[in-house]
Amino acid sequence: MVKGEEMSGNLEWTINMPNGKSKILGPERGLVGRTWEKLKSLVVGFVMKIWKFLVESWKIGVAEPKKFIHCIKVGLALSVVSTFYYMRPLYQSVGGNAMWAIMTVVVVFEYMVGTTICKSVNRAIATIAAGSLGVGVHWIAGHCGEKYEPIVIGASVFIFASAATFSRFIPTVKARFDYGAMIFILTFSFVSVSGYRVDNLIILAQNRVSTIAIGTSLCVLISMLFWPVWAGDQLHHQTISNLEKLANSLEGYVAEYFSNGETPNISEEDLKKKILGYKCVLNSKASEESMANFARWEPAHGHFYFGYPWKQYLKIGAAARNCAYCIDNISSCVDSEMQAPEFLKNYVKDRCINLSFCSSKVLKEAATAIKTRRKSSSTDFLVHEMNSMVQDLHDALKSFPTIRDHADRDGEKIENLNKELLIAEILPLGTFVTLLIETAARIEDTSVEVDKLATMAKFKTQKEKRPKQNELTVIPCTNSRDQEAMKTLEMV
Amino acid sequence: MVKGEEMSGNLEWTINMPNGKSKILGPERGLVGRTWEKLKSLVVGFVMKIWKFLVESWKIGVAEPKKFIHCIKVGLALSVVSTFYYMRPLYQSVGGNAMWAIMTVVVVFEYMVGTTICKSVNRAIATIAAGSLGVGVHWIAGHCGEKYEPIVIGASVFIFASAATFSRFIPTVKARFDYGAMIFILTFSFVSVSGYRVDNLIILAQNRVSTIAIGTSLCVLISMLFWPVWAGDQLHHQTISNLEKLANSLEGYVAEYFSNGETPNISEEDLKKKILGYKCVLNSKASEESMANFARWEPAHGHFYFGYPWKQYLKIGAAARNCAYCIDNISSCVDSEMQAPEFLKNYVKDRCINLSFCSSKVLKEAATAIKTRRKSSSTDFLVHEMNSMVQDLHDALKSFPTIRDHADRDGEKIENLNKELLIAEILPLGTFVTLLIETAARIEDTSVEVDKLATMAKFKTQKEKRPKQNELTVIPCTNSRDQEAMKTLEMV
Repeated sequence: MVKGEEMSGNLEWTINMPNGKSKILGPERGLVGRTWEKLKSLVVGFVMKIWKFLVESWKIGVAEPKKFIHCIKVGLALSVVSTFYYMRPLYQSVGGNAMWAIMTVVVVFEYMVGTTICKSVNRAIATIAAGSLGVGVHWIAGHCGEKYEPIVIGASVFIFASAATFSRFIPTVKARFDYGAMIFILTFSFVSVSGYRVDNLIILAQNRVSTIAIGTSLCVLISMLFWPVWAGDQLHHQTISNLEKLANSLEGYVAEYFSNGETPNISEEDLKKKILGYKCVLNSKASEESMANFARWEPAHGHFYFGYPWKQYLKIGAAARNCAYCIDNISSCVDSEMQAPEFLKNYVKDRCINLSFCSSKVLKEAATAIKTRRKSSSTDFLVHEMNSMVQDLHDALKSFPTIRDHADRDGEKIENLNKELLIAEILPLGTFVTLLIETAARIEDTSVEVDKLATMAKFKTQKEKRPKQNELTVIPCTNSRDQEAMKTLEMV
Repeated sequence: MVKGEEMSGNLEWTINMPNGKSKILGPERGLVGRTWEKLKSLVVGFVMKIWKFLVESWKIGVAEPKKFIHCIKVGLALSVVSTFYYMRPLYQSVGGNAMWAIMTVVVVFEYMVGTTICKSVNRAIATIAAGSLGVGVHWIAGHCGEKYEPIVIGASVFIFASAATFSRFIPTVKARFDYGAMIFILTFSFVSVSGYRVDNLIILAQNRVSTIAIGTSLCVLISMLFWPVWAGDQLHHQTISNLEKLANSLEGYVAEYFSNGETPNISEEDLKKKILGYKCVLNSKASEESMANFARWEPAHGHFYFGYPWKQYLKIGAAARNCAYCIDNISSCVDSEMQAPEFLKNYVKDRCINLSFCSSKVLKEAATAIKTRRKSSSTDFLVHEMNSMVQDLHDALKSFPTIRDHADRDGEKIENLNKELLIAEILPLGTFVTLLIETAARIEDTSVEVDKLATMAKFKTQKEKRPKQNELTVIPCTNSRDQEAMKTLEMV
């Protein structure tokens, strides 16, 4: 019910709600009021966005404090190089070209030492090469008469810039000298064109080279001396963590497949996070390639010498990705609606879990070998064990047609006890097992690549050691042969 | 037989070869000779390397002539911007700061229009923002007394540079404003530090902004007007070609699996190249993301409007990669040593080939829909058909246990005719079929993503058309149901 009342000269509309309460309708706000409301919500939204952004940034920094340190290092380098402006003798020593030093620091200082060195070397060589060429072209142009000088210079700029630009499309140049090619174009254009206006080109070139030398050496020193982030280290650790992620995912999926819906001890979220680790491996190619590329520029550090076989890490990465593709298909099997009946699953459950355990052990052993830079003494044995488990699974599959007796003996309630076991029922399990076996084969390939790295990088041989009793907590096997195998495994 | 002879004062060694010829051993070459030899081989090797490099470069250019054109465009832009040096009025108009225009062209001009625009906008905004901030800081520092001026400036450079450097680690900033953050640091350091030496900072800032404006607008104009390479176009075409590659690989592998070692009509090399196409899809994520990122900066061009749903291409790409992971596993099945017996393969051969044909048709239809920007009218039907073929395969698998009769009826010679068909024999085929079915499911997902793109980008609806008779050249099916389905397919 709506009624209008005239009260103290103001018209008010009151709505009586069905719940007995009444609400007074105020006059509609004017343009100013609405604009104010809009503006307020905009500002609040903006402030909220900035706050979210800051929180996100803070989290990134806390997760990797080296990123915070990098920022401080850049600030430090810039402050140091700025002294060339503040101190008169320094300023005059580079003829007022101090800004080149600043520019060098800004564009050359990168997160990883290798990137910084790569860019510094590129910048230095390209500047010197293009500078000399520019002076040469200017000298030639100077002998062609005033009329033709700009034409000669213009033509040479056009030709050299085009050629250098094209070189950036060539994969080998792109990988190593992309930045150098850009600096070459820049410096060459500067020097040859400036020659037209600046009288003493040699001094200009000298100043530019000396400021760049100051900038690059400062960057390289600061990036190497204070909490350095080595591209090689990053690649090393990423490779290790990728192998471990694969191991966890594989174990996780196989356990989930046979879990019968039971919830494991750890929380669902943690489990999902652990299990989905392989997805990081799927798209690791680009970052690995760039790290391997920059790692090659780095001097000896820690246990890595100059000329360390970084390329082998790319091969390990490729092999690991192959494993990840397989695990991706295993994940489809786990999530699939078509599932084999439980009694069938139980028939191979222990064998599958043991195989996944052993496969992931091979991966973890490979990761440990890289981590400790020691040739693992147990890899060969583990791979051999893995292969014999694969054979065992094959054997188990062969005895499937007589499974009816087996299920019968266990006294389980199976509806299709009387008819032949349908292929369609076995197939989801069969595919799962086949993929597991294929994964084992690909894991062996990965292990071979890690062994090659061990040989190339002259890893030390590990002392024979007995694993502790609790290190191998395998699920007891159903048949005596597996139990024997497990005993052997424990005794190594 | 070796004998020494004294002839005309020189000692010579002659070796009589078993074939009757004799060879005179000359005196060992001296240091000069050896060095000369080494030098010669070095020079020849170097020349050969350069020659190879040039040939390789030429091939790259011929394969994509747009790369040649890009180089010419860069040369052109640089030549145009150089006129600021050659022409006195132009040179004076920017107060001798013409080099900023050159630098802008060199660092901003990129292969794709989107990249150029992104960098230009970043550079312009960052320069203006950092310039104003720098002038402000300089003004504040000027009021702090001569003693504190360098300290205030130094501290502000340290703080802003560190903050801007950190922002580059944040994914959203990294994707869109990485270059801007760098230019911000550069300009801010320049302006605030230069203020200490340069008297009229405003004019310096003005000149810098105007030269950058000249440089960026020149780059954007040249890159857009002459044979532009749009990031959006590239992404569009790469997505289409990836879908087609998947279709070819799938068809190829299935055909190879059932080929019984027969050689197809096309050469082995062509076949391998066609079949391995899916490998390009596996690692396409990084390039797709960068292209989608740059495509967003591009103005309307061709059929693509500003704000085109480029992000949806990334989803299609992700779905396509999922298909590729499956095909990778199918390739393992094809190359595997463990193969099902021929008579078993023959039992599902036609169904599998038809399914692969239909699946790849769905992919090709999706590719065509993107290519022609028309909603395909037959996709729904094809997907439905694909799913019914999948069901058909499931049915076929269910009837496997009675396959003995079937094989018997065909009168084939099968050794294990008398015993039960072993699971281990069926399994390799079963896995292959399951993977094929999984691939079909993932292809359906891809098709759904393409449909979403069609809705988002308002693709036109395709007119109903009859496919030509020879468009559908399926292998005749073994059972009447499939034949009927195929007839329906031909009638659409």
